[in-house]
Amino acid sequence: MLIIAERINSSRKQIAQAIAAGDRAFIEGEAKAQTLAGAHYIDVNAGTFVGEEAEKLRWIVEAVQEVTELPLSIDSPDPEVIKAMLPLMKKTPLINSITLESSRIEGILPLVVEYRTKVIALCQAEQAMSETVDQKVALAGRLVEKLTGAGVPLDDLYIDPLVYPLSTNPKSAGATLEAIGEIMRKFAGVHTICGLTNVSYGLPARKLINRAFLAAAITRGLDSAIIDPTDKLLYAMLKAATLVAGKDDYCMGYICAFREGRLE
Amino acid sequence: MLIIAERINSSRKQIAQAIAAGDRAFIEGEAKAQTLAGAHYIDVNAGTFVGEEAEKLRWIVEAVQEVTELPLSIDSPDPEVIKAMLPLMKKTPLINSITLESSRIEGILPLVVEYRTKVIALCQAEQAMSETVDQKVALAGRLVEKLTGAGVPLDDLYIDPLVYPLSTNPKSAGATLEAIGEIMRKFAGVHTICGLTNVSYGLPARKLINRAFLAAAITRGLDSAIIDPTDKLLYAMLKAATLVAGKDDYCMGYICAFREGRLE
Repeated sequence: MLIIAERINSSRKQIAQAIAAGDRAFIEGEAKAQTLAGAHYIDVNAGTFVGEEAEKLRWIVEAVQEVTELPLSIDSPDPEVIKAMLPLMKKTPLINSITLESSRIEGILPLVVEYRTKVIALCQAEQAMSETVDQKVALAGRLVEKLTGAGVPLDDLYIDPLVYPLSTNPKSAGATLEAIGEIMRKFAGVHTICGLTNVSYGLPARKLINRAFLAAAITRGLDSAIIDPTDKLLYAMLKAATLVAGKDDYCMGYICAFREGRLE
Repeated sequence: MLIIAERINSSRKQIAQAIAAGDRAFIEGEAKAQTLAGAHYIDVNAGTFVGEEAEKLRWIVEAVQEVTELPLSIDSPDPEVIKAMLPLMKKTPLINSITLESSRIEGILPLVVEYRTKVIALCQAEQAMSETVDQKVALAGRLVEKLTGAGVPLDDLYIDPLVYPLSTNPKSAGATLEAIGEIMRKFAGVHTICGLTNVSYGLPARKLINRAFLAAAITRGLDSAIIDPTDKLLYAMLKAATLVAGKDDYCMGYICAFREGRLE
């Protein structure tokens, strides 16, 4: 299970404040905490700083790379911002994210190819819905075709079938779960990924819903997730679901997490 | 989601002690607590009292029916014991359980038909394995054929595909989850059910595994479970998974559970 640590995102109030105040120690602390908690990539996002996104993200990237050996996940829809970050990377990053929309394909795909990065690809296109299982799988197929056609190895491709809030779209989570299973079967070798927070938007006790959805998704084949690895209950559920999914040889991942006190 | 409350089972130490001591107030308390917690059936089991099972179970049945309006789940593999309990029932019970083994089919099926009970049917037969998805679905098919052939409505049939401990059988949970989906699709109108505790046998932090498995199973279509409804974390996960599965209209079940303080 590949964990992309989501905390360094300017849509979170404390992060936005730290960026605005130039509080480098705070950003470094977030990077360190997530590294210790088992992240594989540190996501970096300064999307709310319109007009200053590249400048702020550069500052974040420098701070984060100072304190962790982990590769980064460059989180922006803007090809220019991504392009400006790529030369700064100490390790091969992940780009978060591409879609089938022409501006993002045209702007971002050449960067993925040139820098041989991993890439998150959202099941999203102009004039196409992504609500039913069939729609999601069809969009995934177009992404696979487009990206592998450009030379991106299937193993570098993380498809996000997108999940909508249960509060407004009660069948969305079920469709997303089924799409994950279908995508993993149909395009063997590709990865699937999902952001969790959307699913519970507008409902109480959101984290409980996120945990239930993550557990179900992992048992469908989801093999990466954008989460907060310092969230103990979520991390524990991730370990349990990986075990239930039959992907934890000799139960060692689970037993080790238990011994480290991370399942309480 | 149909909840069969599992606590009154003589394999639990406190229950065995209460039965042995004739502590009727304790059994009544267990029945009341589970009723309040949202059970739909109260399971009653005195299986460890070999030679006295019918006598002890009769005593339990009387105690439980004194304090709850809920129907019972008569939990015994022994046709004679079940037969002795049926005339005592105030509400139509559920029989837990039948299998394809000839002694149980011959002994229990006529009782199911005569008393028009609901019945839990395990994917278990003489000289047949129930490990892979195909094996489980094939056994489910034989159960459906045999029971509906005898006149049992599909709606009264709760198929348990059986799950084995992850500690010894790492692929079992995954196979069971897939079998649940397949059975619900293939035999539309039938129910599926699962005991949870087996899946985590021999591992630490067992309840966490049970919760992950239950969440995943509900999103595959599982529509009943034998659980302890007074287990707050498990109950909360059940409500969240029902929502994620798209089976909670307007999220009302989830929101009500939240307002009742049952999601914390």
